[in-house]
Amino acid sequence: MLATQSEGDDVAGHALKAIILNCTLKRSPAVSNTEALASKVVEWWDRMDVVSEIVRVVDYNVPFGVSSYEGDGDEWPLILDKVKAADIVVLATPIWFGLRSSVAQMVIERLDGTYTETNDVGQYPLYNKVGGVIITGNEDGAHSAAESTLFNLSHLGLTIPPNADTYWVGDAGPGPSYIEAHGEDHAYTKRTTRWMAHNTVHLARMLKANPIPAEGNTFAEEDEHAPHIG
Amino acid sequence: MLATQSEGDDVAGHALKAIILNCTLKRSPAVSNTEALASKVVEWWDRMDVVSEIVRVVDYNVPFGVSSYEGDGDEWPLILDKVKAADIVVLATPIWFGLRSSVAQMVIERLDGTYTETNDVGQYPLYNKVGGVIITGNEDGAHSAAESTLFNLSHLGLTIPPNADTYWVGDAGPGPSYIEAHGEDHAYTKRTTRWMAHNTVHLARMLKANPIPAEGNTFAEEDEHAPHIG
Amino acid sequence: MLATQSEGDDVAGHALKAIILNCTLKRSPAVSNTEALASKVVEWWDRMDVVSEIVRVVDYNVPFGVSSYEGDGDEWPLILDKVKAADIVVLATPIWFGLRSSVAQMVIERLDGTYTETNDVGQYPLYNKVGGVIITGNEDGAHSAAESTLFNLSHLGLTIPPNADTYWVGDAGPGPSYIEAHGEDHAYTKRTTRWMAHNTVHLARMLKANPIPAEGNTFAEEDEHAPHIG
Amino acid sequence: MLATQSEGDDVAGHALKAIILNCTLKRSPAVSNTEALASKVVEWWDRMDVVSEIVRVVDYNVPFGVSSYEGDGDEWPLILDKVKAADIVVLATPIWFGLRSSVAQMVIERLDGTYTETNDVGQYPLYNKVGGVIITGNEDGAHSAAESTLFNLSHLGLTIPPNADTYWVGDAGPGPSYIEAHGEDHAYTKRTTRWMAHNTVHLARMLKANPIPAEGNTFAEEDEHAPHIG
Repeated sequence: MLATQSEGDDVAGHALKAIILNCTLKRSPAVSNTEALASKVVEWWDRMDVVSEIVRVVDYNVPFGVSSYEGDGDEWPLILDKVKAADIVVLATPIWFGLRSSVAQMVIERLDGTYTETNDVGQYPLYNKVGGVIITGNEDGAHSAAESTLFNLSHLGLTIPPNADTYWVGDAGPGPSYIEAHGEDHAYTKRTTRWMAHNTVHLARMLKANPIPAEGNTFAEEDEHAPHIG
Repeated sequence: MLATQSEGDDVAGHALKAIILNCTLKRSPAVSNTEALASKVVEWWDRMDVVSEIVRVVDYNVPFGVSSYEGDGDEWPLILDKVKAADIVVLATPIWFGLRSSVAQMVIERLDGTYTETNDVGQYPLYNKVGGVIITGNEDGAHSAAESTLFNLSHLGLTIPPNADTYWVGDAGPGPSYIEAHGEDHAYTKRTTRWMAHNTVHLARMLKANPIPAEGNTFAEEDEHAPHIG
Repeated sequence: MLATQSEGDDVAGHALKAIILNCTLKRSPAVSNTEALASKVVEWWDRMDVVSEIVRVVDYNVPFGVSSYEGDGDEWPLILDKVKAADIVVLATPIWFGLRSSVAQMVIERLDGTYTETNDVGQYPLYNKVGGVIITGNEDGAHSAAESTLFNLSHLGLTIPPNADTYWVGDAGPGPSYIEAHGEDHAYTKRTTRWMAHNTVHLARMLKANPIPAEGNTFAEEDEHAPHIG
Repeated sequence: MLATQSEGDDVAGHALKAIILNCTLKRSPAVSNTEALASKVVEWWDRMDVVSEIVRVVDYNVPFGVSSYEGDGDEWPLILDKVKAADIVVLATPIWFGLRSSVAQMVIERLDGTYTETNDVGQYPLYNKVGGVIITGNEDGAHSAAESTLFNLSHLGLTIPPNADTYWVGDAGPGPSYIEAHGEDHAYTKRTTRWMAHNTVHLARMLKANPIPAEGNTFAEEDEHAPHIG
């Protein structure tokens, strides 16, 4: 039983934390289809004792840039702190013109700043976190948005579980979005939501119990590694 | 020491197996730049007691299709058996016109056939394997090839570790390929090769010791899952 | 009236020729959804006096490679001749794993061979032709397949008209394909089919009447162009 | 002589106008590598009597959104007016994480608003304009940025000439950018800059002399078109 394991985690004070970065273009309180699908993932996590939060990025003042702090008024550090505190980091994005949103791209660009840091053992600071992606669009582009996002996350140090994506898209051309189209009843999206919610947790538990060894994946080893055996 | 852990694995009879599917367009014995970079990954694996094999797909008779057996003369089943026996599955591909090669695309299409099977606990048969990607091109397209390939592998059930890609590309436009350009001395590619080789092994060991629970990620649970708690 | 213009073309012996390269994975006589949508484009072209042909690439013996002739038995030259004789060149492809098919990728790779030739005025041999794309999939990936294919064609020398793509995809996940889903009645796909069929013809007529000047776009100018004014 | 044609255009009051939307993340007066390459395109256009302007988008207050006006303080309308007045529209973008920048994505999203308008003959308002792309990055992603951008522009109504892209990228991994790496001397980038600058002008002249007929590419024809012949 996952619930039991989860309770076990709780006993040890290790309840998992998850953050979903909702990259809709619309500020609160506008309705976000992407948030509607994200909330389905949260429903599963709630049952698994994962403490989660959905952050709508455009509600914060996040300027364009590739560092972790872009000067006065930059609220990205508030979001980055939440990312660093999480065991599971999920980008949720609408599709525009076949790609993830400009806000999602901006979030990835800002995460570039983490490349200049390391964790205690010399790896990128986002190591031992698990990544996933949630996508909604009215027609097409889910694969593209998932491909780029999961790859970027893996490059930033996150581990990508099997079936780490869930998405809803309608058929070709303009049309209703997730909420209006009753995407919540769409069998495929329900299944991928379930799989994604569970697999992010499965891997996060593994990595919490057994972090990735700092062997072969740090900058510090660079010099010694030329002749290094093993 | 990784070597020691690896010996420990050996004692238990659990030496890891890895397969690299080289998706060059050129049949043996033509020189493959992609194989040259793949061999660097193998060097690391050799030091970590991983038993590995590089398979040049075009040396086999693999017809186009999306099933695991496309009829008389189809040699894909020989390759698929190797994939199923491996703990680490890596696609190695050249870049053509900014994308992974037609052979790499064909390999992914043939893996579609695995979606019709399950493992003993009801997950996709490639669960608990680790995926990675090796890419060479003379100029551009590595991100695209890595994005699509790692995402496809994750969808097929593989886990993608952090920094699961290594690639070499030269600057804009036609130019020398990996071997001629002495890509083996390129600092960035050496680093990503090391990181990729190690992280595929780190995750494969974890998954061998602790397979992904069959909870929330099987078809069998579909019916019960509507009201399912946890 | 287009028909009138087209008759005018006929009088002058300039009826346009179009070729559609159907990149389905299935050999004839297997039913191809992609061909079904392609035939809708042909219907429009028929009304505009465009002489067209649909070539199913897998019915030919086309080996992997990046030259225009890969040795004994290579039937690509038969297809390439048709491409060179056409005013409009359209790739038609199914989507697999979010990308154009391996056959489509192979076709683009084989067109690499044309980069080594020039037309009479020193441009790439596919200059003054018009490109387009036709895509079918059961769920997602049309933008990706269109993006890569139209860009590749533009790089090979073709001109891409506005709205040069038509596609049909269903909603998220496995499901019926174009024919079974009655894609022929889908309003958006009908519209894009009409627009694509017409715009490829509009531009082809323009380029036939006024070819792209060999100014600033040939290799021969390379030396003189450093100090060249205008 | 292009110069002569161009003078002819001037006599008739038809000098071509071009706009380059520089989608760097950095506000003025920060140095922009993308602008440095864009200025090379402008050099060619200057010799061809094309009146051009480089607009650095982040210097304007452009909020996220998909309409042509997002409310008080939105300066996008100022940019959109320039786009509508231009014969040639080029997006210039840096590459971040293998894709075009968030600013470039935002610009495309804002252009979504033009879909709700038509020109005098019922086509999308950006018909009869020519599109191109300029890309700089330190290593990889030019094809991806060009693919998505040129496809999006074609969908918005622009015509894409052959070789409508120019880019500079260095070899794999972090490294110097265009200016520091002396990309201005890179033979391939110089050639593609020349070809792109010329072909955008060649096609713009054609479309100015012979606009795309409003036949088969308008919404107004939708009803009549079912039974329409030709």
